[in-house]
Amino acid sequence: MAVRTPDPDPSGDDPFGAPEGAASNPAWLSDIELTEARRRLPMLYVEGVPVRVDGMGQVTEVGILLRATPMGEMVRTIVSGRVRYGETVRDALFRHLENDLGPMAFPLLPPQPVPFTVAEYFPIPGVSAFHDDRQHAVSLAFVVPVTGPCEPRQDALEVTWLTPEEAASDSLSAEMEGGRGTLVRLALASVGALR
Amino acid sequence: MAVRTPDPDPSGDDPFGAPEGAASNPAWLSDIELTEARRRLPMLYVEGVPVRVDGMGQVTEVGILLRATPMGEMVRTIVSGRVRYGETVRDALFRHLENDLGPMAFPLLPPQPVPFTVAEYFPIPGVSAFHDDRQHAVSLAFVVPVTGPCEPRQDALEVTWLTPEEAASDSLSAEMEGGRGTLVRLALASVGALR
Amino acid sequence: MAVRTPDPDPSGDDPFGAPEGAASNPAWLSDIELTEARRRLPMLYVEGVPVRVDGMGQVTEVGILLRATPMGEMVRTIVSGRVRYGETVRDALFRHLENDLGPMAFPLLPPQPVPFTVAEYFPIPGVSAFHDDRQHAVSLAFVVPVTGPCEPRQDALEVTWLTPEEAASDSLSAEMEGGRGTLVRLALASVGALR
Amino acid sequence: MAVRTPDPDPSGDDPFGAPEGAASNPAWLSDIELTEARRRLPMLYVEGVPVRVDGMGQVTEVGILLRATPMGEMVRTIVSGRVRYGETVRDALFRHLENDLGPMAFPLLPPQPVPFTVAEYFPIPGVSAFHDDRQHAVSLAFVVPVTGPCEPRQDALEVTWLTPEEAASDSLSAEMEGGRGTLVRLALASVGALR
Repeated sequence: MAVRTPDPDPSGDDPFGAPEGAASNPAWLSDIELTEARRRLPMLYVEGVPVRVDGMGQVTEVGILLRATPMGEMVRTIVSGRVRYGETVRDALFRHLENDLGPMAFPLLPPQPVPFTVAEYFPIPGVSAFHDDRQHAVSLAFVVPVTGPCEPRQDALEVTWLTPEEAASDSLSAEMEGGRGTLVRLALASVGALR
Repeated sequence: MAVRTPDPDPSGDDPFGAPEGAASNPAWLSDIELTEARRRLPMLYVEGVPVRVDGMGQVTEVGILLRATPMGEMVRTIVSGRVRYGETVRDALFRHLENDLGPMAFPLLPPQPVPFTVAEYFPIPGVSAFHDDRQHAVSLAFVVPVTGPCEPRQDALEVTWLTPEEAASDSLSAEMEGGRGTLVRLALASVGALR
Repeated sequence: MAVRTPDPDPSGDDPFGAPEGAASNPAWLSDIELTEARRRLPMLYVEGVPVRVDGMGQVTEVGILLRATPMGEMVRTIVSGRVRYGETVRDALFRHLENDLGPMAFPLLPPQPVPFTVAEYFPIPGVSAFHDDRQHAVSLAFVVPVTGPCEPRQDALEVTWLTPEEAASDSLSAEMEGGRGTLVRLALASVGALR
Repeated sequence: MAVRTPDPDPSGDDPFGAPEGAASNPAWLSDIELTEARRRLPMLYVEGVPVRVDGMGQVTEVGILLRATPMGEMVRTIVSGRVRYGETVRDALFRHLENDLGPMAFPLLPPQPVPFTVAEYFPIPGVSAFHDDRQHAVSLAFVVPVTGPCEPRQDALEVTWLTPEEAASDSLSAEMEGGRGTLVRLALASVGALR
């Protein structure tokens, strides 16, 4: 899962390091510097819950990612990643959606800058509903309708489309790390699709 | 302007009466009954501020309607109309968008059921920022991205696309009746496009 | 429960009729007229989920009302009632909070006019998550911190304070009519207190 | 103004450095490290617009801070400061409110975790409505009713209470740095107090 696993490709895209060829750009952190900063500062994240909507805007399905951890464990997650220095929240959200859902997903970013919730991930479990043993991360979480086909790139293996009922279930929640089952429920509540 | 002018076509669509052929349907009010109810109950309205967004979801333009009153006066307004008995808020919003912007506008209704503001129109000016001498109306107001061409039907003469700065200006506000200049500013604020 | 049970006191306070002595006021509906209007127009409601908060504003408890129906059945509900002609949404919410929680509850109404959700109650079950066999009602629902002791008046028998976990439970939801278990969960989600 | 001026007291409270005696705590940054991090990572901020509300929750006044810059210039601002490593957003907001308004202000933090807007400050002007030549900061901005007397501590000289009209005026906006005049208007819009 994005915010909890080591980077399989250090020169790859966020959330794991600087973009290719950017190692010497002072605006980007080396892996060592990023590791250091993570122990000292809250990291700013964006998260996206991909949804399908019908012609009236009502959410019909929720997209959940399947991802393999470096230890070969399969976990369920949503779109998630760091906001870079100098990058707008909107650009960061778009970049991570494209990375995780592919270039044909055509996400419709909301006109509003306000997230449906602010998820606070702490390295010590129990401080909040969200946990990330790697860092203190504060995440702005958005519901994002996607209109095209999703073909995950990078380390996301596939996107599974679930009904709102399935997405809110205890069984799905148990497969999601870091409290993201709660995040999916809050997303569903924000669109009136939680029962 | 929708909520303040008599209906040029009594058998026409909302907000002025029952749909054609529905006069004997007990779920619909005759014109006389509706006039009577308007003096006794708050009427539920939906309003839509049509916008154009760029590829990142950011609002670039705001659509303002030009409408002729029965007295031949030109006023500026937004999409506005009553919610009917048995109709969902979402269906009512879609119906009024289609009536005022035409069938090719392709509005993208928001997945969220929560409006950007609740506008309370009172028959006596000064109770709130909004005024409608015909009735007490409570309106759920939404920002709605539209993706297709707009060809107003019914009594709306045209749609003018303005920049956020123009839409927030005092001069536009002065041309809008019932406090809808304020409503447009609140809409712009909700999408972070008010300076 | 407020919106589904006949009024034990026809001349009493809303949501069942005009205030005492107001029968001849044209701005108020007689019981017969209100019954008639309910079959023709969506009724505007406000609902309040009373909460206790700690010194940091975090919700610690949710207040659920116990009420006896005319048939002697006990149901769980929240604060709920109609908006009157000429009354602001804010005034209506305050009036119903005072009716249901007593004059010492000291509710802190939110500065924002936007509800946490818009609940649409239809007479036919299944149209939405909410159901009211008596009418089509559209309700603006708010979370309201209360700071004083609650002594229900009228037909509410008592207020029970539950933890967020208890308030979100399936067992409580089963005791609540009209889908208000869902409404309580959406309220908890809006304050980040749903897991 | 908090986010743009050097700290008059380097060992003092945030946003300018570690708390007293924390210099050797690896979770806190030295001034040099913080300066360095500011050139590489977006900084997470909270901002609070203090308001007075009437008995119905309606905003009647907005509190604007007067502050002297190190060059002796007077600027107007709002409550603003950094979120520390390990600190909740709520705790950070409370801490900065207490620093800027004094211990008797009794702020009522909102139960909702969602800000009224997300303000993105960039070191280069024009990227967004907000500007901070010192850093890239992303700020979660909240409207906070305060109920007690305000006695600014630290470098804030006084709190001036303005009507919503005064607070939204162009003349006030011109006295506020970094685009915070816009932030005050967005705050007023969120509580329905902008005309």
